[in-house]
Amino acid sequence: MAGNTTGQIFKVTTYGESHGSGVGAVIDGCPPGIAINNRMIRKALDKRKTGKSIAGTDRKEPDQAEITSGIFKEVTTGTPLMIFIPNKEADSDAYKDIADIYRPGHGDITYMQKYKIRDWRGGGRASARETAARVAAGAVAKAVLNKENIRVDAYTIRLGSIIANKYDFNYAKTDLFLCPDRQASEAMEREVKKIKKEGNSLGGVVRIIVKGAPSGLGEPVFDKLDADIAKAIMSIGAVKGVEIGAGFEAALMKGSENNDSISPNGFATNNAGGILAGISNGEDIIITVAVKPIPSIRLEQKTIDEKGNKKNISIKGRHDISAIPRINSVCEAMTSITLADHLLRQRAIS
Amino acid sequence: MAGNTTGQIFKVTTYGESHGSGVGAVIDGCPPGIAINNRMIRKALDKRKTGKSIAGTDRKEPDQAEITSGIFKEVTTGTPLMIFIPNKEADSDAYKDIADIYRPGHGDITYMQKYKIRDWRGGGRASARETAARVAAGAVAKAVLNKENIRVDAYTIRLGSIIANKYDFNYAKTDLFLCPDRQASEAMEREVKKIKKEGNSLGGVVRIIVKGAPSGLGEPVFDKLDADIAKAIMSIGAVKGVEIGAGFEAALMKGSENNDSISPNGFATNNAGGILAGISNGEDIIITVAVKPIPSIRLEQKTIDEKGNKKNISIKGRHDISAIPRINSVCEAMTSITLADHLLRQRAIS
Amino acid sequence: MAGNTTGQIFKVTTYGESHGSGVGAVIDGCPPGIAINNRMIRKALDKRKTGKSIAGTDRKEPDQAEITSGIFKEVTTGTPLMIFIPNKEADSDAYKDIADIYRPGHGDITYMQKYKIRDWRGGGRASARETAARVAAGAVAKAVLNKENIRVDAYTIRLGSIIANKYDFNYAKTDLFLCPDRQASEAMEREVKKIKKEGNSLGGVVRIIVKGAPSGLGEPVFDKLDADIAKAIMSIGAVKGVEIGAGFEAALMKGSENNDSISPNGFATNNAGGILAGISNGEDIIITVAVKPIPSIRLEQKTIDEKGNKKNISIKGRHDISAIPRINSVCEAMTSITLADHLLRQRAIS
Amino acid sequence: MAGNTTGQIFKVTTYGESHGSGVGAVIDGCPPGIAINNRMIRKALDKRKTGKSIAGTDRKEPDQAEITSGIFKEVTTGTPLMIFIPNKEADSDAYKDIADIYRPGHGDITYMQKYKIRDWRGGGRASARETAARVAAGAVAKAVLNKENIRVDAYTIRLGSIIANKYDFNYAKTDLFLCPDRQASEAMEREVKKIKKEGNSLGGVVRIIVKGAPSGLGEPVFDKLDADIAKAIMSIGAVKGVEIGAGFEAALMKGSENNDSISPNGFATNNAGGILAGISNGEDIIITVAVKPIPSIRLEQKTIDEKGNKKNISIKGRHDISAIPRINSVCEAMTSITLADHLLRQRAIS
Repeated sequence: MAGNTTGQIFKVTTYGESHGSGVGAVIDGCPPGIAINNRMIRKALDKRKTGKSIAGTDRKEPDQAEITSGIFKEVTTGTPLMIFIPNKEADSDAYKDIADIYRPGHGDITYMQKYKIRDWRGGGRASARETAARVAAGAVAKAVLNKENIRVDAYTIRLGSIIANKYDFNYAKTDLFLCPDRQASEAMEREVKKIKKEGNSLGGVVRIIVKGAPSGLGEPVFDKLDADIAKAIMSIGAVKGVEIGAGFEAALMKGSENNDSISPNGFATNNAGGILAGISNGEDIIITVAVKPIPSIRLEQKTIDEKGNKKNISIKGRHDISAIPRINSVCEAMTSITLADHLLRQRAIS
Repeated sequence: MAGNTTGQIFKVTTYGESHGSGVGAVIDGCPPGIAINNRMIRKALDKRKTGKSIAGTDRKEPDQAEITSGIFKEVTTGTPLMIFIPNKEADSDAYKDIADIYRPGHGDITYMQKYKIRDWRGGGRASARETAARVAAGAVAKAVLNKENIRVDAYTIRLGSIIANKYDFNYAKTDLFLCPDRQASEAMEREVKKIKKEGNSLGGVVRIIVKGAPSGLGEPVFDKLDADIAKAIMSIGAVKGVEIGAGFEAALMKGSENNDSISPNGFATNNAGGILAGISNGEDIIITVAVKPIPSIRLEQKTIDEKGNKKNISIKGRHDISAIPRINSVCEAMTSITLADHLLRQRAIS
Repeated sequence: MAGNTTGQIFKVTTYGESHGSGVGAVIDGCPPGIAINNRMIRKALDKRKTGKSIAGTDRKEPDQAEITSGIFKEVTTGTPLMIFIPNKEADSDAYKDIADIYRPGHGDITYMQKYKIRDWRGGGRASARETAARVAAGAVAKAVLNKENIRVDAYTIRLGSIIANKYDFNYAKTDLFLCPDRQASEAMEREVKKIKKEGNSLGGVVRIIVKGAPSGLGEPVFDKLDADIAKAIMSIGAVKGVEIGAGFEAALMKGSENNDSISPNGFATNNAGGILAGISNGEDIIITVAVKPIPSIRLEQKTIDEKGNKKNISIKGRHDISAIPRINSVCEAMTSITLADHLLRQRAIS
Repeated sequence: MAGNTTGQIFKVTTYGESHGSGVGAVIDGCPPGIAINNRMIRKALDKRKTGKSIAGTDRKEPDQAEITSGIFKEVTTGTPLMIFIPNKEADSDAYKDIADIYRPGHGDITYMQKYKIRDWRGGGRASARETAARVAAGAVAKAVLNKENIRVDAYTIRLGSIIANKYDFNYAKTDLFLCPDRQASEAMEREVKKIKKEGNSLGGVVRIIVKGAPSGLGEPVFDKLDADIAKAIMSIGAVKGVEIGAGFEAALMKGSENNDSISPNGFATNNAGGILAGISNGEDIIITVAVKPIPSIRLEQKTIDEKGNKKNISIKGRHDISAIPRINSVCEAMTSITLADHLLRQRAIS
């Protein structure tokens, strides 16, 4: 399973399974002199739980993350930071009954196809629990970006059939769904309750906005900034689509409509989403993310077991109704990690 | 501009500008024993010109690509293949007048922001000419995949406002637009003529279908197969969005609708697009690509020059009306390169 | 400090400082199905302490290493293994007096030159403590190699002025200095006692022998097997020289003397040290390593403090007299990690 | 044969065989704004032929190297430089007779063991011809280093049994053997003539000296500066040993002798060879290299053919008597490439 490292200079490696001792990350290549401490990491992990009581599960998951290396007196030294997040309440019993059954929409079957062995407890490495490590590493990336006044935020612009029609991003920061439209948010709350009762789940759309990114970030050709962002975001389990700027809308426009004209004061529009030819142009970077519904549902589904026998499965336990708004923190983390890496890459050749 | 290499084991590095001596690629990590020759490369480059006379420019671009290393008696030896594609008819004069003006929608401004210097002739490294090298390398990747009976094809399912409603993929292979719907294709032809007269350009949507990919490809977490495909596709200049399987449609479905139920004979549906938890599941891999309209248009646009002065610009010369269907070959190439790499990565741990 | 990862497929990342919470490693890319458990790791760490009471310090360092991820029922799953080795008895007080003084022969001054900040407690990241993580990861690599009957051993062939004249490698395994010559070993013991009294330290020479490596490992040109081994070994703090096969002796020979003639039964001699043109040839791989004396000595030395003032320094506390024989385990670990990586790389293209 | 790329930021990929169309390199990650032209590359390739008429072959090898991309008006643009060096006088006929015979000391047998196929013409990829690409790329690296007043030179301090006893490095630059001792050089000339008559070949020792390297280069732990240099140098075909600073001599010293004491004016001695704990300390970087004798000799040797039959072989044609002094240019190139990479890596985190 090589492939657990992302980044060229600001390198993040994660490890850990849902029901092992814990999950975590090693961050290699963080510049020295950045103020980092356990409180910052824990706060980021707390934010990941935003709205949990509504859209998600009620499980308490007290993430006592700890930085075990790489800082001295709460400042980075240039050596690798290791952050360990212990798994506190892993109860594998709930999974014993379905240990040899492939849950539809999950990686159970593909892990078995790939490795011929799998840790079935809580989804193992494929569990959303793994994203806690990304969020922890993202907090370090954000600290690097903050020094340059770069800010990354992710908002919910759709949940199931409910669409945000207003974009009050200041409001969104305290909204339960991180939705920029209070009325839509209230409708989302009702939708969630209804779906919960049904034993079903919801998908949605998240928008990531990067403010303050300098121009010149991104390496043309294969490591374009948008290409690296697309990979980072698509590497989040529930994501099925990524757009930059106008995205699929751009496909419908004519050149004269889609091109952002340039004036001495900057770009007149931002269909490009802040990235031209793979390089940031100084405008806001706009990313839109399709999030599929949580595959674990109470409703009965058809599947097979490891031997290929037909089975019916109904997922018990307290599962999230939607990856949103938890996934928003993960989107921010992955975007921040990618930007921090490109920020340092650009320094190398400047 | 590090970032011109893609892949971990099957590694492709490209180089070259639009109006330099040529463009090309080094392919390192191709297994020994694969039959490859100049004819195969040239045929792939020819396919890249499909439909050119309709949707694109009329420029002749005789790509006399040559493999300069890595083969012995038309079989790969395990050493790096270098493919050189000379630029035959580079005429930089057309660019002299706009040498210091930033064309809207192009990388002119961001290259300057990043490097403080740029080769303005024909778009330099940011020219679509660069993709010829990708297509050449893709032909090698396809040869690797063919040995495993894996096939990668890209179809046009939308051009401007015209949408394919039928999916006759056999027909599509000989269609001018690589469109699987003959009627839609005829409408596309009319649309292209109209837009050409207007001096404008069109975007569209391409669908890539991979048949025969074995299950088990893809490294979970950061190097998920879908994540690497998303990066590969988003690294193509004109692409602004990528979907896997149901993509943004998945965001609207409930869990019970989106999950692909499993039977002893396989999956009942393919909303996942052939990839679960980042690993191929043996179904067709389905990728949908948003292609923005060509930014070079005759219609006058507002912009600035290098000194920041206001300018109006009208792009002269024979430019493509749409990146489609040329870009289809590039989509196939990038998907093939990514799959070949993951095929070899999987062998390493099996 | 990016640069804490080694390997292309079998990837090892280490982290941790001497006096932080602990040191450790993440191993990404280990194939599934390898039997690994805490006992194996701890045994390897114990071996690292061999001979400590003689050549080294008397500190007890009970390494309660634990694998926190990547195994299920004591078998690898293909996901990253994280091994944490807590620092149990870190006493930083001994270092407070010299917190702002650069110890000669140590990285104190260069860490400050590079990072403008350093963790002075116990040498921080530059401490030999870091090598415990390498040894732990090496135990996993050895398990991968054992499945292929590849064996890696490191012997002491010189300590200070004492040279091994006999090569009884079976005997060596239980020798205090891992020396293949009992008489030499006894002389080494006397030498160590004498030097200890002087307050000085010793260097020496280690020979690594790999038995059972198949032919065909190693990637020609930059990633030659001997090149990667040289890097791996030179990356150990105390190493100042690396030879493959005849090494510097080869420089004195004529072609007719140095070439290993080939017969149907193999090579007549092994001046090449098992590697030809960067690829293993099936013979024993022979590596010779120059180990510098431990820089921490009681004898007074001249140096400066962080402000550039002249200082005299005498290193107090219980320090090793020689990196040998502790470093032997580290040599084995680094060689094993490198071989495991090339074993998997070769599988990818076979 | 992945493994043809070296470097993390300043990345060099080489390709090409002895008797194909040519050899060459792609340099990705070179900063923009560096003055580079064909004349500089050709001059470096000419230097590689120094002393050829004496120690080496008399073949003319007019290297008409050309930079095909990455520069605009003889200045780097930040895009990849591709340098192509055509093979002009490849005569494969001389190799036909030994096409299926393994030459002792060469990679013939190991290439076959690894790839099951090999290009036997002139040694194929394993030919010393490959190093021309390294020297060309090294010329670019040197241009990057020159801007920082870093200078890399390689001298011959031993050829066969002849040892340099004087170190007049100014003189060495014009010496036929690049030897810093005129008397020794004259003895080398006599030695070469004698060995040539015998149909044998010679090894030797090269010393590389880097002047002006700033402190702070090198990434501790695996990517130590000395580790990366050791790999770079050991990746040159004929090299069998690498030392940093005192090297194997350090193994004989006591700590008090080997430690370089520090004063306000710098280090009193340079046993460390300019690198402490993997990081440059501002002193000269000293590297010593063991070069094995050229394996191609006229004297008859025992070997086998591809089917395993016993054969006697006597290598005909004009072969070098020693890799020295040609290899000196390659040593400089590899050191320069490694330093340029670490220079840029350090910028990224500063």
